[in-house]
Amino acid sequence: MDPLEDPVPGLGTYEDFNTIDWVREKSKDRDRHREITKNSRRSTAALLHSISDAFSGWLLMLLVGLMAGALAGGIDIAAHWLTDMKEGICLDGFWFSHEHCCWKSSETTFKDRDRCPQWQTWGELITGTSEGAFSYILNYLIYIVWALFFAFLAVTLVRAFAPYACGSGIPEIKTILSGFIIRGYLGKWTLITKTVTLVLAVSSGLSLGKEGPLVHVACCCANILCHLFTKYRKNEAKRREVLSAAAAVGVSVAFGAPIGGVLFSLEEVSYYFPLKTLWRSFFAALVAAFTLRSINPFGNSRLVLFYVEFHAPWHLVELVPFIFLGIFGGLWGALFIKANIAWCRIRKTTRLGRYPIVEVLAVTAVTALVAYPNSYTRMSGAELISELFNDCSLLDSSQLCGYLQVGRRSSFSCSGAGRAASNLSVPSGLFIPSMAVGAIAGRLLGVGMEQLAYYNHDGLIFKGWCTPEADCITPGLYAMVGAAACLGGVTRMTVSLVVIMFELTGGLEYIVPLMAAAMTSKWVADAFGREGIYEAHIRLNGYPFLEPKEEFEHSSLAVDVMRPRRSDPPLAVLTQDSMTVGGVESTRYSGFPVVVSQESPRLVGFVLRRDLLISIDNARKRQDGVVGASLVVFSEHPPAQAPDGPPPLRLRGIMDLSPFTVTDHTPMDITVDIFRKLGLRQCLVTHNGRLLGIITKKDILKHMAQIANRDPDSILFN
Amino acid sequence: MDPLEDPVPGLGTYEDFNTIDWVREKSKDRDRHREITKNSRRSTAALLHSISDAFSGWLLMLLVGLMAGALAGGIDIAAHWLTDMKEGICLDGFWFSHEHCCWKSSETTFKDRDRCPQWQTWGELITGTSEGAFSYILNYLIYIVWALFFAFLAVTLVRAFAPYACGSGIPEIKTILSGFIIRGYLGKWTLITKTVTLVLAVSSGLSLGKEGPLVHVACCCANILCHLFTKYRKNEAKRREVLSAAAAVGVSVAFGAPIGGVLFSLEEVSYYFPLKTLWRSFFAALVAAFTLRSINPFGNSRLVLFYVEFHAPWHLVELVPFIFLGIFGGLWGALFIKANIAWCRIRKTTRLGRYPIVEVLAVTAVTALVAYPNSYTRMSGAELISELFNDCSLLDSSQLCGYLQVGRRSSFSCSGAGRAASNLSVPSGLFIPSMAVGAIAGRLLGVGMEQLAYYNHDGLIFKGWCTPEADCITPGLYAMVGAAACLGGVTRMTVSLVVIMFELTGGLEYIVPLMAAAMTSKWVADAFGREGIYEAHIRLNGYPFLEPKEEFEHSSLAVDVMRPRRSDPPLAVLTQDSMTVGGVESTRYSGFPVVVSQESPRLVGFVLRRDLLISIDNARKRQDGVVGASLVVFSEHPPAQAPDGPPPLRLRGIMDLSPFTVTDHTPMDITVDIFRKLGLRQCLVTHNGRLLGIITKKDILKHMAQIANRDPDSILFN
Repeated sequence: MDPLEDPVPGLGTYEDFNTIDWVREKSKDRDRHREITKNSRRSTAALLHSISDAFSGWLLMLLVGLMAGALAGGIDIAAHWLTDMKEGICLDGFWFSHEHCCWKSSETTFKDRDRCPQWQTWGELITGTSEGAFSYILNYLIYIVWALFFAFLAVTLVRAFAPYACGSGIPEIKTILSGFIIRGYLGKWTLITKTVTLVLAVSSGLSLGKEGPLVHVACCCANILCHLFTKYRKNEAKRREVLSAAAAVGVSVAFGAPIGGVLFSLEEVSYYFPLKTLWRSFFAALVAAFTLRSINPFGNSRLVLFYVEFHAPWHLVELVPFIFLGIFGGLWGALFIKANIAWCRIRKTTRLGRYPIVEVLAVTAVTALVAYPNSYTRMSGAELISELFNDCSLLDSSQLCGYLQVGRRSSFSCSGAGRAASNLSVPSGLFIPSMAVGAIAGRLLGVGMEQLAYYNHDGLIFKGWCTPEADCITPGLYAMVGAAACLGGVTRMTVSLVVIMFELTGGLEYIVPLMAAAMTSKWVADAFGREGIYEAHIRLNGYPFLEPKEEFEHSSLAVDVMRPRRSDPPLAVLTQDSMTVGGVESTRYSGFPVVVSQESPRLVGFVLRRDLLISIDNARKRQDGVVGASLVVFSEHPPAQAPDGPPPLRLRGIMDLSPFTVTDHTPMDITVDIFRKLGLRQCLVTHNGRLLGIITKKDILKHMAQIANRDPDSILFN
Repeated sequence: MDPLEDPVPGLGTYEDFNTIDWVREKSKDRDRHREITKNSRRSTAALLHSISDAFSGWLLMLLVGLMAGALAGGIDIAAHWLTDMKEGICLDGFWFSHEHCCWKSSETTFKDRDRCPQWQTWGELITGTSEGAFSYILNYLIYIVWALFFAFLAVTLVRAFAPYACGSGIPEIKTILSGFIIRGYLGKWTLITKTVTLVLAVSSGLSLGKEGPLVHVACCCANILCHLFTKYRKNEAKRREVLSAAAAVGVSVAFGAPIGGVLFSLEEVSYYFPLKTLWRSFFAALVAAFTLRSINPFGNSRLVLFYVEFHAPWHLVELVPFIFLGIFGGLWGALFIKANIAWCRIRKTTRLGRYPIVEVLAVTAVTALVAYPNSYTRMSGAELISELFNDCSLLDSSQLCGYLQVGRRSSFSCSGAGRAASNLSVPSGLFIPSMAVGAIAGRLLGVGMEQLAYYNHDGLIFKGWCTPEADCITPGLYAMVGAAACLGGVTRMTVSLVVIMFELTGGLEYIVPLMAAAMTSKWVADAFGREGIYEAHIRLNGYPFLEPKEEFEHSSLAVDVMRPRRSDPPLAVLTQDSMTVGGVESTRYSGFPVVVSQESPRLVGFVLRRDLLISIDNARKRQDGVVGASLVVFSEHPPAQAPDGPPPLRLRGIMDLSPFTVTDHTPMDITVDIFRKLGLRQCLVTHNGRLLGIITKKDILKHMAQIANRDPDSILFN
């Protein structure tokens, strides 16, 4: 009679665009674990199963690290190759990048390393000479054609195969980690499409970074690999632990900063981050970083994206320009978020949104047109930042150390970078463009300071620490601080940002300038709006995300937020022993409290409509004589059965016997805290032991929107 | 009539050795914040107050960092001076340490740096010559006398002024951070005594570290500085946020590793660690590290305690010895914990515990006797570790690079270090001794490997990466890995340990060996018992600490844990409108659920006995006609008053209107999770809306002890 003797397929699963119940998921996992531990004493096979189960988490982490590291390496190599393809071709084989092509060259001097006969620009190939205006124009045109072709391919692939592959994906990953379900967002098609189109988008020369998308790629890997292990496949909470670690892996391979990656996941992306996950993320991040290093895509055996080594210490007075950079970064970040959101809103609401391909092509064409003539705008964002971070005083290999042109060039780059990451329909991250803007601003300030110090080394400020011979200002450090400030202003990262930068330089000395800038930037940007770019996008998309960082500051009580409101019809409840199957099936809400009786609304439990319908369906299939008039019984002891009626359907097993309750007088700040910390989906409200109403996560979000004078209906999903 | 119109002194405070209610504290702080924000719109003064309130947290962090950094610097300098005092004196002034004394010396060559005429050993001073057996014996004796004198002074001071100053203090700080109250543990007397006696204990030559005690010192600083700010003085939860940051500061100044310190606080010590605290801890840790650096106690301008720079990379094959070191560390850690706890138990239960001074002096005498003859055992643990970490191949300044004697010496040091940290009545940490043991073992293994590689460089294993000319094995790295493994085995730290070590070396290259060792060590040690040394001490002392890392794996339900048990008398409750003052005052428990009536036990709220008594006392003082027969009313609308009776005392204001409830069917794993995440003190148990019983934190701990077959009465406090 009990339909729960066999597990019913689908019971305890969730629908798309719904929020999971963390407590239930974790409880399920603990039950599973107890079962395995209990069995392990019976046989050797079960013991082995228990051991393999215990280590499956580590194994999974290892696989995620290896796969994400390998993919990141592949993306780097492919993007390099395609980027060079825009300029020319290797005669030895079209699959060689410029650098690879010239490895075999006999010209081994440093300067001529990049010039070898095997590598020919398109103009050279066609006209037979590398000189002359015609060749230049031909190169220019072919460059633009390639860029447009890559961009077109990227946007078409995204639209055809996986619309979820566009953007950086971090807002969605944040939402998913907080317990939301978006089926397919981390699936295999998204992974393949994102990997391929990321290469194309980067190669097309658009001002976008591959750092955010790499986080998405790593999360896709983790999600797909989760299918190998029952423990993670079947449990949404456990899977999210793995995804949190994968986010760390993504940043780790993007920057070569494993510790920073873990802190990024902890600070910026994750929702539930137990200590066990901390350790595992760290492991996975390291594995990924070392996998990437052994692929060695940058060809320099370095782990980090921008390796910098500064030699001059900084002076306390310099904190003033650093804080100034922080203010600039904060202002720029706030402005960028506002502009970006406004643009996305325009795209969402006007006809513009209907032509994403045209938009991408237009932006690509403009970028390519503007960027080609100047080597600094033509190079990728990461290379530009690398150049800007450079310390001139040692190896004067960079042209940036000839000062006169920097100003003009920077303004060029700026116009390119400023257009970035406006959520085109291609994979695009905003780390690199933001950093580029900051690095340019910082470098400009640094060069200015250096000139000032050079000409005023006996002045009041510079006296004592600046001599005309020695360099006392490091413009590269200014660029770095500026980059941190701008990135901080956009994302509102703090500790993780400083740690990532620390891992890039490896010296504790420079933490203080970075921290001063990051702190100032965050404070300044927060003054214009507390949301970072990711939170702003989450809100724009109406995802049900309960921000864990923000305090709920209003003084409302649970009774003010719960449904039903005073004017509403009474709360839809089920009684424990007097409902019929027909009555249950005609209900509307997604979950119901079960009470003792309509007269005495004392809470017995909570049942989800999905589980109810699946169980009734299942009972019907098993032909237990279930008809519309069958009683549905949730009580422990079924009531005396009517002699002529159909047998009752006992469904106590699918009822949650321990629903969370708060009293009507509970302040909402406490209620919000409970929702956040326990990861609840709903909570029942009682007064003196009687059921009054229900509060769902969506109710809370609507209430918060109302307080902030926003449209409460902007929260779209459950 | 309402006694709550004015705040009643003492209301909402806690008694000593009790657990705080995190939810209530945080709610109180939010109320305070709302009040200030509301007022800030009224006047400029209030606005300034609001701004200063917002920044007071940062200011406090700055002060904590400055104070802790300065104290750590002072302790280093003083300990250096007193340690040298054991061996000799500076003729220019007794307040110079050996190094300071010889700074003025004209002998500037490196080798003779430490030999200057102004510095004389005691034997030299008395006999007039530094040669001869008599002088040596005299030095030996005076060394022992000084050591005994310092130890005696330390133990006497601790016993006279602040018994809380003994040990490392980390178990107690962990307990305090989890919400327990131990008055005076972080007070000014403890701070002064701990600082002074720490210097004495370190100088006496005992094998103990100052790293753990520095955490205690930093927490004392934070606690004292909290008194400057109302926000932190009056709120136990807010104060614990500051203390969490202070723990990070302590490790930051101990090792010069700010990021590692923050992760140590997060992983090992803290209980409630919101992101805001993460950022502030980081700030405070950096301020402290830079304060310490500007004091420059090590005289080398380095931030870190052991600065190491390795030059040779490691080879994949070497992971085998590294993992072997991990196994050793795990075994040693497990053994150490068992031995340490057994010894503490003996001291607690036998007569030995009555003679702490004798114990300390005996250990000091033996240590001094054994340690003096050998320069490696005579030097402090930190210096020894520094030597062991050294890379021989570059600067052969260390005697350790002459290999033959290492074996014998190590066994000496080991015997000294093994005796360490056995919780004598002086401040003592176990970081350094544990690391020393591991470093010795690691160095031995490293030297063995090096010899093996030297003689078998064409053998199967070493072929290809070891040539006879080049050094392919770095024994210093082995020492470092060994130190991490032993420390990991004792404390079960993982990420923070690796990050601290990373900050010491500054190279990501060496993270993999460290991680392999730390992971193996933790797994091996966990196989012998899941508790680290701190948790073991918490359990030994019976503190009510709910371990946040351990999963509750038993399948019991709330109804199995709650009181009253089946055979017990019914739960003591208060009714909302029929209790008298006399009835309330004759109660015994520390808190009571308030119900509608005895017949209908539906929950209205929860009230603490302490608050009740304070309110009644206060009402008596205000002469509101409160007599024993006065009604105590908790309901919103008081019942009709008897015309001749005394007026009722309305106490709804002190009642918690939103007590936490779970149902009797709630699995205990969920209940434990709720207790941990929300920081509850108690939780009420209901069945179908009727009150059944109560679960306190102590009940949970007793239940857990019972499951683990331990004495449930070992949990001592509330």
